[in-house]
Amino acid sequence: MVKINPDRLLSDLRTLASFGKYKTGVHRPTYSADDMSARRWFAQRIEEAGLRAEIDGIGNVYGFNPTKSRLALAGSHLESQNHAGWLDGALGVVYALEAARAISEAPGNADAGLDVIAFADEEGHFGSFLGSRSFIGDLTEAEIDSAFNHSFGTSLRQALAEAGLAGRSRRVIDASRYRAFLEAHIEQGDILESSGMKIGIVTAIVAIWQYRIVVTGEQNHAGTTTMARRRDAGLALIRLLAAIDRRFPEVAGPRSVWTTGQIALSPGAKSIIPGQAEALFQFRDADADVLTRLENELTTVIREANSAGPCTVTLERISASRPAPMDANVQDVLESAAEQYAAGQHVRMPSGAGHDAQWLAPKLPTGMLFVPSIGGISHHWTENTSDEDIVLGAQVFADAAMRVLRA
Amino acid sequence: MVKINPDRLLSDLRTLASFGKYKTGVHRPTYSADDMSARRWFAQRIEEAGLRAEIDGIGNVYGFNPTKSRLALAGSHLESQNHAGWLDGALGVVYALEAARAISEAPGNADAGLDVIAFADEEGHFGSFLGSRSFIGDLTEAEIDSAFNHSFGTSLRQALAEAGLAGRSRRVIDASRYRAFLEAHIEQGDILESSGMKIGIVTAIVAIWQYRIVVTGEQNHAGTTTMARRRDAGLALIRLLAAIDRRFPEVAGPRSVWTTGQIALSPGAKSIIPGQAEALFQFRDADADVLTRLENELTTVIREANSAGPCTVTLERISASRPAPMDANVQDVLESAAEQYAAGQHVRMPSGAGHDAQWLAPKLPTGMLFVPSIGGISHHWTENTSDEDIVLGAQVFADAAMRVLRA
Repeated sequence: MVKINPDRLLSDLRTLASFGKYKTGVHRPTYSADDMSARRWFAQRIEEAGLRAEIDGIGNVYGFNPTKSRLALAGSHLESQNHAGWLDGALGVVYALEAARAISEAPGNADAGLDVIAFADEEGHFGSFLGSRSFIGDLTEAEIDSAFNHSFGTSLRQALAEAGLAGRSRRVIDASRYRAFLEAHIEQGDILESSGMKIGIVTAIVAIWQYRIVVTGEQNHAGTTTMARRRDAGLALIRLLAAIDRRFPEVAGPRSVWTTGQIALSPGAKSIIPGQAEALFQFRDADADVLTRLENELTTVIREANSAGPCTVTLERISASRPAPMDANVQDVLESAAEQYAAGQHVRMPSGAGHDAQWLAPKLPTGMLFVPSIGGISHHWTENTSDEDIVLGAQVFADAAMRVLRA
Repeated sequence: MVKINPDRLLSDLRTLASFGKYKTGVHRPTYSADDMSARRWFAQRIEEAGLRAEIDGIGNVYGFNPTKSRLALAGSHLESQNHAGWLDGALGVVYALEAARAISEAPGNADAGLDVIAFADEEGHFGSFLGSRSFIGDLTEAEIDSAFNHSFGTSLRQALAEAGLAGRSRRVIDASRYRAFLEAHIEQGDILESSGMKIGIVTAIVAIWQYRIVVTGEQNHAGTTTMARRRDAGLALIRLLAAIDRRFPEVAGPRSVWTTGQIALSPGAKSIIPGQAEALFQFRDADADVLTRLENELTTVIREANSAGPCTVTLERISASRPAPMDANVQDVLESAAEQYAAGQHVRMPSGAGHDAQWLAPKLPTGMLFVPSIGGISHHWTENTSDEDIVLGAQVFADAAMRVLRA
């Protein structure tokens, strides 16, 4: 029977939170000095756990067991969003480390072990899941050449050089080595908390389909242009978004979400009728049929807007990922472990956020475990989970890893 | 009979357009080097016309006739919006100059003359109608102390110092000197053009009531937060603006206009539900009752939004000017002059834009004349009026000024 060490777990999490500490959270952008310090500290902790550790050319910290033959891989990411929480990513890497330690300490485990990985840039400071995509062989050198920091414009090459990573090779997965990939994460929503649950077993990571909606009208004087003569791009966008608000519920699935995150009117002055208006719009679902229905409705609403006039609306699809279903057997294993330590307090649920696990899922049987987020808050420095829930989640996670190795 | 000189008029307008030339328009922000060069050039042209000229402490170019006893005042502003048209403001000051010259050249006018003024910052780079408000004694030193450039943040004091205006006194109107104030301007809309009219006689300058609408919700993750749990400030703002769009037509007057010029979602990222949303909203009408009805409807819509929840909406009134009716006798005079030179091609109409004349109206019998804007375009470098219409408008303007002086 595998048994985690709660004090060691919490101590490691709190030490990790000291790298880039910001209020009660952290500010640890990818490849920043604090992020690299955290990666070196984590590599050292991996070595102390009896694994070998390396930091590869994209910043992934990879810890591998040199002696065991029955292996699984576990991990998450180390960097944070800007001025964000202490657990997003960090929880998953420390769970993986603690599970590796607990498994190596458990009796009768001569041949079973856990490799650990801390990916880089899941939070997308420079790109899209750079670390996990590099690890599965999906990241080209050309993409690295063209990537830059979205906040500061620093090139990825320069950031890698300043972090001391230039010229290092990038580690690519040997899938034959592993029985499964496991990732733990805070839920980032309040489904667990509001229903009194302690463990979420992820059924699928939703797909995100993102769009830029651009409305072109005619810029004009807000005083001298009659209402009848106007081609107000801002008003046309408001009508369009209001139509989406009315009609998406008719075609959405029970877990669908859709969001307008940004609106820009041009020129954006109080006395000028906007000549152009833009919105960033996205929707998410784990069901490919629902995603298609939502996109069809979106294009229908836009077609109707163009028929009605007087502005013209264009739709650009920025990205469209595929839902990543989690492995059915791994879900069963996670559920068995959850039932042992939190009987009746676990639930299967999709993940509305993207995670490194979605990139591992095509390569390995993959599973994810969620712990509750207090108030559902994440991407904010007040993000938190109770110590009790952190410890319980780690125990379930380690037990599930052990079950995978024993199966 | 007063007779303008078309070549001199067009030549002056074209010379003026060379100060800060931008494509076929001008970029001549208040107190910029190009604006000050234009002011000095204009002061010189005033002197050449036999008036005395001064540039006062707010940048107003004031040209006064030292000998005549029957006087009126005419003018407009010299600076432009950023990267805007060559006629907005410039047309009115050159019309005033040309009318002053034509009147002094007309036979039998020993005692009649026209003073000329070119106001500063009607376009609001630093404040609200700084020049005309200074001229009527409405601008305090404290307001000058606290004003700054809306694009660049330069303080007004610093800009005045760099323009060489620091320490100069500000000229305030001696209303007893004048029978009337007259301002000509491009229409900035397409009412004249679309109805085949050549001259607009302004009945009133509309009031502008401006508001900041702020919606407070809860910032959250766009993937992990269910639709039911969201307090999406952006969506609440869209619903509110859509309600205004539906309901304002029910209470508006025939000439009312309303505009959302700016929308900002915070934090404005594609995967974050906006926690706050702001809009700049304004409406305009020449009828005080209509203005009140529109504001009542706005507050009702917001009250309903707050009752419905889940976000909270606040309304801040940024400004609320009063409609400025033009003097009835001056309107009649302008109409008589228009009928003489453009029989059947003139129309009375409100001004949907603000003008310096609205500040003079409480001090002097005030009138405004509009000439057609090609395509209704203004505040853009493509702004234009045909030479034929420019010349016709100047003749009507000078004739109307003469009629005011002879009455």
